[in-house]
Amino acid sequence: MGQLLTVQAIGEQGLLKRLQSFCPVDLVGDDAAVLTTQPGRSLVVTTDVLVDGVHFSNQTTSSEDAGWRAAAANLSDLAAMGATPLGLTVGLSLPGDTAVDWVEGLYRGLTACLSPYKTPIVGGDICRSPVLSVAITAFGEVEPNRIMRRSAARPGDAIVVTGVHGASKAGLEILLQPELGRSLNADDRAILIQAHQRPQPRLDVVELLGELSQETAIDQQRKGDVRKAQSPPSLPLTPYPSPLTRIASMDSSDGLADAVLQLCRASGVGARLERSQIPFPPALTPWVGIEQALDWALYGGEDFELVLCLPLLKAQALVQQLGKGAAIVGITTTAPGVWLVDKTQTVPEQQLTLEQGFQHFGAV
Amino acid sequence: MGQLLTVQAIGEQGLLKRLQSFCPVDLVGDDAAVLTTQPGRSLVVTTDVLVDGVHFSNQTTSSEDAGWRAAAANLSDLAAMGATPLGLTVGLSLPGDTAVDWVEGLYRGLTACLSPYKTPIVGGDICRSPVLSVAITAFGEVEPNRIMRRSAARPGDAIVVTGVHGASKAGLEILLQPELGRSLNADDRAILIQAHQRPQPRLDVVELLGELSQETAIDQQRKGDVRKAQSPPSLPLTPYPSPLTRIASMDSSDGLADAVLQLCRASGVGARLERSQIPFPPALTPWVGIEQALDWALYGGEDFELVLCLPLLKAQALVQQLGKGAAIVGITTTAPGVWLVDKTQTVPEQQLTLEQGFQHFGAV
Repeated sequence: MGQLLTVQAIGEQGLLKRLQSFCPVDLVGDDAAVLTTQPGRSLVVTTDVLVDGVHFSNQTTSSEDAGWRAAAANLSDLAAMGATPLGLTVGLSLPGDTAVDWVEGLYRGLTACLSPYKTPIVGGDICRSPVLSVAITAFGEVEPNRIMRRSAARPGDAIVVTGVHGASKAGLEILLQPELGRSLNADDRAILIQAHQRPQPRLDVVELLGELSQETAIDQQRKGDVRKAQSPPSLPLTPYPSPLTRIASMDSSDGLADAVLQLCRASGVGARLERSQIPFPPALTPWVGIEQALDWALYGGEDFELVLCLPLLKAQALVQQLGKGAAIVGITTTAPGVWLVDKTQTVPEQQLTLEQGFQHFGAV
Repeated sequence: MGQLLTVQAIGEQGLLKRLQSFCPVDLVGDDAAVLTTQPGRSLVVTTDVLVDGVHFSNQTTSSEDAGWRAAAANLSDLAAMGATPLGLTVGLSLPGDTAVDWVEGLYRGLTACLSPYKTPIVGGDICRSPVLSVAITAFGEVEPNRIMRRSAARPGDAIVVTGVHGASKAGLEILLQPELGRSLNADDRAILIQAHQRPQPRLDVVELLGELSQETAIDQQRKGDVRKAQSPPSLPLTPYPSPLTRIASMDSSDGLADAVLQLCRASGVGARLERSQIPFPPALTPWVGIEQALDWALYGGEDFELVLCLPLLKAQALVQQLGKGAAIVGITTTAPGVWLVDKTQTVPEQQLTLEQGFQHFGAV
């Protein structure tokens, strides 16, 4: 067995040189990276810090997976705002005895997640620290009339989730206690573990919403053209940007309950979620039962789906387009509070609160 | 004595609520912050990680000073690119027993440094960690024809520093060993300590270069108008953007030697620096002697001045405009290597190398 090459052995400059191979050549080597943005778009910025032993551990997370998940979490925040990604920066704090292979694995995971979206790592900083941590800042751009804010929900909106919930938590539990998953078949086990290790940021939803909104614009223009048939035919029938349907949005990184609660708080509305409408991965309820599945969906977190509030007709069209796992899970209300309800009235109504969700310091 | 309020005691949400008072209201409360950029400008991004015990310590740095210096370091990177700042994000890793007042002090320091430039803190993340660290990402914007890169130097350029060097290291030494500074008068001592604790990012230089370039543009336009006197007088005589004089640029955060070496490496040139031209704070050489002063100027770091390479005539005009401390310290050469030379030929020529500079991991 050869000895592991450590960060200390190759020094900061040596490590930087290796990591630069993961970054576009023209963005490396200055005090800061320069990126081109499209005219008229707004800049969107988000940041996350991950700490060894808190957000990842060698038991459940390879450095590739840690990198993938860090990138996914930040791209998910951009998706939640309706933005498309431009790039991200990586700030590394490393003990000197960190294996170089671990750091390169992290970058492999980051770039694997980023590459379908042609999103570069545009810079970073490395420093010595007793504890390994990774700080990511991602930035993207969005047309101002397509920004999706948490505060945009109105009473009577449908609440849409873009996919199943509880899968990431289920995958984590299987990784932590492999005997738990023994009753699952190999495919189902793999799907749940994949959901935890390689979550997909829903940038495809942003693209789809853009297309839906363009179709709406064309429809409206066609109708306009029919009514204005006498006008000169000089107006071309091309798609043009139009304001999106008003959509409130947040990602479900801290669980579905947290997302709905935050949306409601920001918008000054309440909500009723229907138990039977919350979508789980198919294998989940047969395996752990409905109550455990619900708990993982509501509070497990890290599914990185989008939770959207929008008018019912638009919501139905969107869910149909999204397909697998997407669902209308409830409705926003004038009455305050977020309630989990059972349309069969077998289970009593239950109020959801932020305190039940994950709290970084509360758990210490 | 009352007990200190800790981060653990108020929880993540409680801390976030307090820190949001340092951020613009309209940028808080979504998955990401949205900022407006000016059309046609490029986005510039830079990131830094600071770790307790490595980059700051309670012995020499209050949390206000740590915040100020973190902001200054990032604004300095933007200035080195010729950019003006748009905002920054703060990623905090905190042990649960960190005093809330420490964290608020950090934010007070950050905002104190940022406020003259109307630059907001646009978001952040807080997480639990055994070690306190601060990851900052700053972004700014620049007209594409005004980007200053390290690689733009040509042989025969004058090398300009925008101010004195060695001051920050001198201030640090006084803080670490107060008896060292006893022979200095109180004013000089305060100036050096201030240079270490409250360095000024040279965004004023970016503004000045913009003005100089506009003046040049007006001059050129005037000349053009004289030659085109027969043309219709409809062309208004207003300033318009023109490409800047080609300028290579880097900040001196890791010392003057490092900056010159990096500029030369990126541009494929060598350099000769004249010992007698390197500007020190007035009190420095009488206090510690020329060799110690030179060492601190070249390798001390954290002076956060800009080091620029540009044609001699432009360099002279710039130094005159900048005034106090600014100087032409040398010239770039076709011959490789960076040499410290003595025009009186009393001291032998000395080649400078990157290895003499500060290396985060090499020093472990």
